[in-house]
Amino acid sequence: MKSLTEHLWFEVGKRRDYLNITPQIEALVKKSGVREGLCLVNAMHITASVYINDDEEGLLADYDEWLEGLAPHAPVERYRHNNTGEDNADAHLKRQVMGREVVVAITGGKLDFGPWEQIFYAEFDGRRRKRVLVKIIGE
Amino acid sequence: MKSLTEHLWFEVGKRRDYLNITPQIEALVKKSGVREGLCLVNAMHITASVYINDDEEGLLADYDEWLEGLAPHAPVERYRHNNTGEDNADAHLKRQVMGREVVVAITGGKLDFGPWEQIFYAEFDGRRRKRVLVKIIGE
Amino acid sequence: MKSLTEHLWFEVGKRRDYLNITPQIEALVKKSGVREGLCLVNAMHITASVYINDDEEGLLADYDEWLEGLAPHAPVERYRHNNTGEDNADAHLKRQVMGREVVVAITGGKLDFGPWEQIFYAEFDGRRRKRVLVKIIGE
Repeated sequence: MKSLTEHLWFEVGKRRDYLNITPQIEALVKKSGVREGLCLVNAMHITASVYINDDEEGLLADYDEWLEGLAPHAPVERYRHNNTGEDNADAHLKRQVMGREVVVAITGGKLDFGPWEQIFYAEFDGRRRKRVLVKIIGE
Repeated sequence: MKSLTEHLWFEVGKRRDYLNITPQIEALVKKSGVREGLCLVNAMHITASVYINDDEEGLLADYDEWLEGLAPHAPVERYRHNNTGEDNADAHLKRQVMGREVVVAITGGKLDFGPWEQIFYAEFDGRRRKRVLVKIIGE
Repeated sequence: MKSLTEHLWFEVGKRRDYLNITPQIEALVKKSGVREGLCLVNAMHITASVYINDDEEGLLADYDEWLEGLAPHAPVERYRHNNTGEDNADAHLKRQVMGREVVVAITGGKLDFGPWEQIFYAEFDGRRRKRVLVKIIGE
């Protein structure tokens, strides 16, 4: 069994943003030499998500507005977590809707994707350096 | 390490539906010959989900109504994604609530399930052919 | 390839609760002897979740209130699933928001975690014995 472990670092300039990280993951699959296996990609921070969906500008705006409706940032006092001095309770909630991780099949040395699948890093509490973990196992 | 890769095709006759695909997955686990390992099942399209829950008619109706409340289909103009000519933005949102994939343990050559766990394909933008990927690795 | 399969049992005294199960999972990773691999942790019951987020009391209260807002328990008659004699339809919905499972990388014999990641068992229909499955594969 082969394995590869890499951490990708991101520093998003605003509170929330959605980054297509598919090219970086594809490069790591190639680097791993794995032909058949699984690729785990997960946020290592609990106010961010890794998810798979479409890289379409309108959809990213729809996600952002929808998540803000489901778990509004303000008023920050509405969340008990923010009594700790944080203002990011909403980010912990939004991340649960979008998920922590994706597991993608590797077939014939490549990510086994449908026609529009793209891997995104979703930041809900940015303006600091945060990591994504990529773990590949297989043969 | 053994591995097996299969694509299951579905064409759902209406916009939204919920299909129990457990028997197909069980057959693929058997075919793989894997006794101890992991089985990844994921939607390959970004307006559909694979999830695990109960095969109970009332619950499926509850899911459908609840998801329509969280991310209504109409008016389609409320979503920027639909400016591209699509009318399926809501399907991209519903799919995030229900998830893209499940990873199920294989123990003793079988899906290692609790008493009521069933694997579902949830279609949120049907009336065309779409795929699910099954990837099994182990020994 | 090594593998380890264990079931953890829980009996939560009230309807809903959130238990940090990270120490139990860490002990199983050690027991497995796996240095590089994947650790799947999933609820075996369909009214409970396994998820990763912060072990902070205020946040746990925020999650509970937020989930009750998204999928209220009462009136129980609002859900068709409850016509079966159950009163736990809301628990099936809440569990979909928080997720069934997590897959965590094992690197150098340990869970490869970010600074605040903790594994939680979320119970949405307690007061009876329920299980979590831990499956570890790797080398």
